[in-house]
Amino acid sequence: MASGYTLTPWEAKGRIDYDKLIEEFGVERLEDRHFEILQELAGELHPLLRRRFFFAHRDLDHVLADYQSGKGFFLYTGRAPSKSPMHIGHIIPFIITRWFQEKFEVNVYIEIPDEEKFLAKKADSLDEVAPYAEKDILNIIALGFDENRTFIFKDTEYIGRMYRAAVLIARHINFSTARAVFGFDGETSIGLIFYPALQIVPTLFEKKRPLIPCGIDQDPYFRLQRDIAPKLNRYKAAELLSKLVWGLTGPETKMSASEPETAIMLNEAPREARRKIMNAYTGGRATAEEQRRLGGVPEVCPVFHWFSVLFENDDKKLEERFWACKRGELLCGECKTHLAERVERFLVTHAQRVKEAEAKRDKFLYDGKLAQEMWNWEFKLE
Amino acid sequence: MASGYTLTPWEAKGRIDYDKLIEEFGVERLEDRHFEILQELAGELHPLLRRRFFFAHRDLDHVLADYQSGKGFFLYTGRAPSKSPMHIGHIIPFIITRWFQEKFEVNVYIEIPDEEKFLAKKADSLDEVAPYAEKDILNIIALGFDENRTFIFKDTEYIGRMYRAAVLIARHINFSTARAVFGFDGETSIGLIFYPALQIVPTLFEKKRPLIPCGIDQDPYFRLQRDIAPKLNRYKAAELLSKLVWGLTGPETKMSASEPETAIMLNEAPREARRKIMNAYTGGRATAEEQRRLGGVPEVCPVFHWFSVLFENDDKKLEERFWACKRGELLCGECKTHLAERVERFLVTHAQRVKEAEAKRDKFLYDGKLAQEMWNWEFKLE
Repeated sequence: MASGYTLTPWEAKGRIDYDKLIEEFGVERLEDRHFEILQELAGELHPLLRRRFFFAHRDLDHVLADYQSGKGFFLYTGRAPSKSPMHIGHIIPFIITRWFQEKFEVNVYIEIPDEEKFLAKKADSLDEVAPYAEKDILNIIALGFDENRTFIFKDTEYIGRMYRAAVLIARHINFSTARAVFGFDGETSIGLIFYPALQIVPTLFEKKRPLIPCGIDQDPYFRLQRDIAPKLNRYKAAELLSKLVWGLTGPETKMSASEPETAIMLNEAPREARRKIMNAYTGGRATAEEQRRLGGVPEVCPVFHWFSVLFENDDKKLEERFWACKRGELLCGECKTHLAERVERFLVTHAQRVKEAEAKRDKFLYDGKLAQEMWNWEFKLE
Repeated sequence: MASGYTLTPWEAKGRIDYDKLIEEFGVERLEDRHFEILQELAGELHPLLRRRFFFAHRDLDHVLADYQSGKGFFLYTGRAPSKSPMHIGHIIPFIITRWFQEKFEVNVYIEIPDEEKFLAKKADSLDEVAPYAEKDILNIIALGFDENRTFIFKDTEYIGRMYRAAVLIARHINFSTARAVFGFDGETSIGLIFYPALQIVPTLFEKKRPLIPCGIDQDPYFRLQRDIAPKLNRYKAAELLSKLVWGLTGPETKMSASEPETAIMLNEAPREARRKIMNAYTGGRATAEEQRRLGGVPEVCPVFHWFSVLFENDDKKLEERFWACKRGELLCGECKTHLAERVERFLVTHAQRVKEAEAKRDKFLYDGKLAQEMWNWEFKLE
């Protein structure tokens, strides 16, 4: 595996050094005090927090202080639909966003930039992306958001309400800045060059601090936002930044729809999911004998990683699994069977919830309390 | 006066050599045959045509053939509102557009890009531009368009219907092309970089050939359009290109709101208009005696130019004026008085029509036959 890495909103390649990213992106590490305050306010900590899968932030202290002082905050995240369905790694920001919504009773805005992949030349037409946008919306709704506190919007539909604010934002972003931040060049389409303004717009939806759970690859948008927001008399975006879920093919690899063996899609057939997991790379030894003697290496094992991120909520059981592997008592075949069972169960339940989401879709997009308000939203410089 | 000139959609400076522009822009000169066919089809020729103030075109032959074959065509033009009202030079494309609408009974689309000057850093806020956008709309309506065949739209209001098409267009325009065509650089805002896509959108409104009467400074947008339209299964834009109306301060100068003595605003007080005209630069001699002896030079006279462009429809009378000047019989004071009277009369009539336009405004923007259709328009790749 290459030791170098590249990470832009459009690409993540190679092993990722998160300490280096914290330094490079200029974000803050999440500290014990954050988890203590969150624990106190929420009454518990989501496993993705207590296991530090969210590892960095911007202005989380301010968000928590705003909450404690009664000012409140709001949540914003998104998903750019592409030519393939969402995979299991994509749900991380939505899971934590939903958790924050439940615990803090705040509004959630979810942008579906259904033009971005087309403009980035990762899709050949808008029509190619359109059905995936709809599937993504159902997948997101299926994760359990509050239909009256959540607004989901597609750029191509909601642009009429966004454009004015986007223009005010865009005026503050010169090409040289956009080029430096996003690596744009002469080949970049003028639509993609404008797009950052649209990803920034939802940070202005309320006169409260926006908290954005996302992958660190999205930070450049919000770093830009933080320069601009004060000029528009709005709050700088706060961020809660997660690591990437490893692909099944190795430690710190990325799940990628274009490499099917790396990922489990949210609409994957359970049998196929099982097959992929049974074929996964692990932290096991060359032979069962060797593994019993030396123990496995869960630290580099995607299977153990998946338990820790999504498929084992019980810390004690996760620790038992860790040590059983280390001691050579739990072999990879058995461990993978355990994971496959959980993933299959998740996929079956999720498919059921996606079905149920169809009936609720319009609440999130048009008819729910927040959605209705947002179809009358207008940005006003105050 | 400098012999060099610059002409971009944002600037026109110095003496303009139209022959050179035809060559540089790669457009075609309007030929006798165009005027003959137009005369035959329309039954007459507008003075701006028969006096060749419209001097160049793209694809006018195709437009006329389309009309003759029954395919038809449509008209598109626009006005970017700024921090000052429209002046008399700005109405040229609208006058000829209205004439074509009347003679050929075709639809007219008028874009009001109310974000452009702000994005081009020629205005400090959108709110600063907004009242001028409204005044421009009334000024345009006052010129006599058909309320059921004309759709006037502001970008910030109509973007919801335009964005999808703009994205399809934008995907075909890389930054390097936009930079070469418009002179964008690192300081250009990402909003202005995207803007050309929005100016191209209306050329896709119908599956007919769009004819765009405009100043040649707007040609770069439509040159781009002509590369893209075939890829979107639409017609290349046809153009009808006018010269610039001279300012009052000299031959081939430009009217400019920032240099008030050069221009008469559409809302100018008639007394003030008279004062400016009486102070105008002319083709007269140093003294009355000299002028009687040598004659004036109407060829370089803004006052004569204004008669020829807007304030004398009768060719015979215009010729008489020309020779009376040449022969030293008509001195500048008298000639300017004639012009001042016509301009005053125009301003009074126009002000009355602007007043009447208020009641009709919503027909053009929302309720008229074409406007209603356009609020349901969707671009479909066919």
